Amino acid sequence: MRIVTISREFGSGGRELGKRLSEALNCDYYDKEIIATIAERCKVDEEYAEYLLTHSFPSTANITMRNSFHIASTLQMTQIHFLCEQSKVIKEIAKTGRDCVIVGRNADLLLEDYCPFNIFVCADLETKLQRCHDRASKGEVMTDKEMIKKCKQIDKNRKKTRAMISDLPWGDKQTYNLIVNTSGWKIKDLVPLVAQFVDKWFEEE
Amino acid sequence: MRIVTISREFGSGGRELGKRLSEALNCDYYDKEIIATIAERCKVDEEYAEYLLTHSFPSTANITMRNSFHIASTLQMTQIHFLCEQSKVIKEIAKTGRDCVIVGRNADLLLEDYCPFNIFVCADLETKLQRCHDRASKGEVMTDKEMIKKCKQIDKNRKKTRAMISDLPWGDKQTYNLIVNTSGWKIKDLVPLVAQFVDKWFEEE
Repeated sequence: MRIVTISREFGSGGRELGKRLSEALNCDYYDKEIIATIAERCKVDEEYAEYLLTHSFPSTANITMRNSFHIASTLQMTQIHFLCEQSKVIKEIAKTGRDCVIVGRNADLLLEDYCPFNIFVCADLETKLQRCHDRASKGEVMTDKEMIKKCKQIDKNRKKTRAMISDLPWGDKQTYNLIVNTSGWKIKDLVPLVAQFVDKWFEEE
Repeated sequence: MRIVTISREFGSGGRELGKRLSEALNCDYYDKEIIATIAERCKVDEEYAEYLLTHSFPSTANITMRNSFHIASTLQMTQIHFLCEQSKVIKEIAKTGRDCVIVGRNADLLLEDYCPFNIFVCADLETKLQRCHDRASKGEVMTDKEMIKKCKQIDKNRKKTRAMISDLPWGDKQTYNLIVNTSGWKIKDLVPLVAQFVDKWFEEE
């Protein structure tokens, strides 16, 4: 079974690379589908599930306001519940035995026992900014400064949620088989190149 | 003109990858040759040139022993002279207009104007250790602990000499087009995969 995981900086094109890679490898693709499953099982809407799974919340030790202890603690407990659910869903995907590409969700760590091929996708700020502007919905008008802030905030959250389950920092070179900097590339041109790495990796096993 | 630069963690197989890549791309290869040229021009032996170019020396501010100021200062001045010479030699290589692979020496930074394809090669500690043991000369018997210390020291020196000429840390993802973790790979199997990245990159220009 071939599992490919994709971790990525926000705006680097990691999701597009993952989607296209799954087509090139002719295998399943998981990204938002995981959130949808969790939301359904936990009987909440997808936005709330996504929010809980991609943010970090202050630990109770930082809360000094009266009565806040209980509220913070509940939020954190809920998040842990959602993270466990996410872990369960991702492991269920692996257990199907079908080849797949999974984007985000720290699947590389959660599926360590399945020896996935782990890819990290990054890009320079200019590339990420351009991609974010191109992808922004029609009504959404953001300045460069706002967009940069958004990119940094999302990656900061990824770092923090990663730190909840791993000692190795998010994006650490040791954790991935391949790190692709998409600056200067068309994502579609990268796909066959990365696919060959994957093919060769699993062929060797 | 296609210039590929290879930066690497000690023991990761970066040099072997570079050498084989130059054969696959049918182009020139530079590594120790650069040191040899500098040594010849500066009329010193290669070991001394190599030592000066790969170590960092305490700044004069750290020197408190009497009379040491002059010695430290001379050493640093000599190093700067050698670094300038190295920069000159590497730029001369680029000016020939011939395709080449250059291993180490911060060539990625020095040749920034030539838009090289920059690769960083890393591996997990176990892989590096194994490679170092395999490569050790017959008389050289080192324990794992000594070998790990050596690996870390060499990479630390690389970090420090990099810091002399760049604000971005050695091994920073933003600096490279591709980061390859050689753990679990035979280097020779990686060569055609990496070569295709290079081919496609320069084809796009």
